Amino acid sequence: MEKTHPIRPNRRSLAVSQNRIVEKDFLTELGLTTAPYARVTTMADLTAALDRIGTPAILKTACLGYDGKGQVRIMSRANAPAALAKMHGAEAVLEGFIDFSYEISVIAARGLNGSVSCYDPGENVYRSGILHKTTIPARLSPSQRTDAILIASRILNALDYVGVMGVEFFVTPAGLIVNEIAPRVHNSGHWTQNGCAIDQFEQHIRAVTGWPLGDGSRHSNVVMENLIGEDILRVPEISKEKNAALHLYGKSETRTGRKMGHVNRVVG
Amino acid sequence: MEKTHPIRPNRRSLAVSQNRIVEKDFLTELGLTTAPYARVTTMADLTAALDRIGTPAILKTACLGYDGKGQVRIMSRANAPAALAKMHGAEAVLEGFIDFSYEISVIAARGLNGSVSCYDPGENVYRSGILHKTTIPARLSPSQRTDAILIASRILNALDYVGVMGVEFFVTPAGLIVNEIAPRVHNSGHWTQNGCAIDQFEQHIRAVTGWPLGDGSRHSNVVMENLIGEDILRVPEISKEKNAALHLYGKSETRTGRKMGHVNRVVG
Repeated sequence: MEKTHPIRPNRRSLAVSQNRIVEKDFLTELGLTTAPYARVTTMADLTAALDRIGTPAILKTACLGYDGKGQVRIMSRANAPAALAKMHGAEAVLEGFIDFSYEISVIAARGLNGSVSCYDPGENVYRSGILHKTTIPARLSPSQRTDAILIASRILNALDYVGVMGVEFFVTPAGLIVNEIAPRVHNSGHWTQNGCAIDQFEQHIRAVTGWPLGDGSRHSNVVMENLIGEDILRVPEISKEKNAALHLYGKSETRTGRKMGHVNRVVG
Repeated sequence: MEKTHPIRPNRRSLAVSQNRIVEKDFLTELGLTTAPYARVTTMADLTAALDRIGTPAILKTACLGYDGKGQVRIMSRANAPAALAKMHGAEAVLEGFIDFSYEISVIAARGLNGSVSCYDPGENVYRSGILHKTTIPARLSPSQRTDAILIASRILNALDYVGVMGVEFFVTPAGLIVNEIAPRVHNSGHWTQNGCAIDQFEQHIRAVTGWPLGDGSRHSNVVMENLIGEDILRVPEISKEKNAALHLYGKSETRTGRKMGHVNRVVG
């Protein structure tokens, strides 16, 4: 299909980001820092990986995980067999724990002409493995901010990527560590709906249709809060708040851990 | 139907605003200032009206006019018969010319519980009778701004209005003159899409569904420009601008004077 119709983002970008091992190999080859990792399919793999990486560590399915699904922590080697069993024979990756201060993400876009435009990094807080809150701007020094944007740009350029991508980083005393990349509009970029003239959704459409990109500039500071599961019951209260833009997804069934909507609080 | 299902805004609000004479009678009874006006159906009416109001004046159909349609200026009494002929026998209103500095509008909302919330007044510029540009904030002294908002509130309260309404004012050295009211979201309120956490469209839905209203606070200054007719050809240029939020209506046919879209420029 790619021979007759352009696919944006391209297949390579999807292939790279759909498998955590391929993704980390790609990032490593680019010279970027990731968490220590090892491919695991057997108990022998896992034992060798734990020898190298140590505990605590986290075992993740290589494919199809999101929002903390398909992940299990290994706090001591005694947990290893049970953790492996939870992979149900699927290819997995063992990742070392990173002692990080907090997570940030850069929502980056690359146009058909190769121009790259990034929104200001947001600072992310998770609860039970699910994004809870993104605050813009993130607590970053000017040089950290520049690093984050340059790294995101390198990733998009290396993939010849067209569209919007979310790039997650751990902020550590030793520098930025790339956590993962997401080849799409990203939950941590929802704040752009109320902080920018051109939000990440329009930006993505602009990119894939060859329009000029918005420059990502921010007219307002925003705190985005996800409404997860029963958080949706707080909508009547939130609707009374000033400067709170509610975005509800219209899902009829509320389930624990299900993203039901989000609220963007314009804070100045 | 109103007996079994609530209609919001109510029928009275629609009846008042659908006829320029009923509207001006209503505003006058509220103690508000309008342009001098007189009902005209015959040449005798028009002659008497011109005796009282003088020239220049403007003859408008009482119903169904918008964007300068159904209007004719009477610069001298010699024009009067031709002007009346253009009404095609429909009920009309003669309005005196107002020597105004500029026009502003207040986008006001009233909730089911009677609470009123107004966005900051915008300053409107017309071309050929069609709104060209709205700038927020308008050039108003604090007391003029307060007057505009209080007058808008009085109108909505008097009509027991539920929903969003546009109230247009002429700013004159002698004070504010109500030009007209529009019982709906209003072209001059489109700036709220990129200037407020809760825009006029959501505000209207909040009002008619009984939700709490947004407070109308503005996080950014905006200049809204309508894209009329061939202005749509400028979209490629506008798409390169920074901080320009484009809103296109998807109309396939471009006609002179037709509203094809608008652009909200976030200016700070």
